[in-house]
Amino acid sequence: MKYPFAFEELIESFKKLPGIGLKSAERMAYKVLDMDDDTIARFSHALVAAKQDIHWCERCGHMTDKTFCDICLDESRDTSTICVVQSSKDVYALERSQEYRGVYHVLHGVISAVNGVGPQDITIPRLTDRVKSGTIKEIILATNPTVDGETTALYIAKVLENYQLNISRLAYGLPVGGNLDYADDFTLMKALQGRRKV
Amino acid sequence: MKYPFAFEELIESFKKLPGIGLKSAERMAYKVLDMDDDTIARFSHALVAAKQDIHWCERCGHMTDKTFCDICLDESRDTSTICVVQSSKDVYALERSQEYRGVYHVLHGVISAVNGVGPQDITIPRLTDRVKSGTIKEIILATNPTVDGETTALYIAKVLENYQLNISRLAYGLPVGGNLDYADDFTLMKALQGRRKV
Repeated sequence: MKYPFAFEELIESFKKLPGIGLKSAERMAYKVLDMDDDTIARFSHALVAAKQDIHWCERCGHMTDKTFCDICLDESRDTSTICVVQSSKDVYALERSQEYRGVYHVLHGVISAVNGVGPQDITIPRLTDRVKSGTIKEIILATNPTVDGETTALYIAKVLENYQLNISRLAYGLPVGGNLDYADDFTLMKALQGRRKV
Repeated sequence: MKYPFAFEELIESFKKLPGIGLKSAERMAYKVLDMDDDTIARFSHALVAAKQDIHWCERCGHMTDKTFCDICLDESRDTSTICVVQSSKDVYALERSQEYRGVYHVLHGVISAVNGVGPQDITIPRLTDRVKSGTIKEIILATNPTVDGETTALYIAKVLENYQLNISRLAYGLPVGGNLDYADDFTLMKALQGRRKV
């Protein structure tokens, strides 16, 4: 037995969201029927508005609803240090740590042979342009600790090696609050290699 | 650091869905930014359309986009048997079993002292009206096997006892494919009490 058309359409839309299968989509659709009209109107508008209003900062590529993002506009930040990340999500993660006071560069992806993504497909050319402008002193490569993330970090380090830059990579090691017992072999090996004098 | 307003609004909307916390809502909102305009427009429209087009069958209370639901309109169904369920979800579940050929009555809730829901707050009066019309011969009480579901079933059985009806309740017992070992004590007790000659 089939659902009414409008309900089926709603389920199909929910199924497009990450991690949502048929059962969860059905539960969400039933929930929508219980919502008041105002909540639904806001939800419906938010979907369109997010896509329309949100774009990428013209300097660093971070998410913003203005021309430049709040970080690029913040005059108290150290513009001589650029932290290179894969996505806007990572900017928010690093900002939560409250450790970093420089600016960012969002790559919007990583170099990936499997997915056919080359250096020109992500914002690496724009990064070299920023470096060429001459005021950059330090680059922190904060791509994910995966094969593709690592490849991208190495590629960027290679491309920028002729500029007078201090290039570093985030430290590998044990996550704070983690359990030595549960750490994988590779992480343990990296933690040993990167050990620091106390 | 805060997200842009439109993005924040979208996250808030996703958080209203069942089982969705902040992390999942963020993931969904990022996913929306990656969707094409057409998909988003359809999603946005589906939300409003579902609420507008979907209402409850005037006879049985099941979900429909017409005046009467497909089941009530289906002339091949046995209209002398009514299966009483808590929600439209349960109608779809029972239809999947392909065992039942009668019609339904959707209560849209259960009697619940804790939540202050009485018999008049759900569609029990409409059910007695249907029974009074005189053509009903059998009632199957298919509310959930919970305290409230059980109370509601007993209440309906009591209300309808003076009409010449065959009233039954769904069988309790082991779920097919289940493991005796994992069955709770109450289910096992019910399975023993309800044992049938082979």
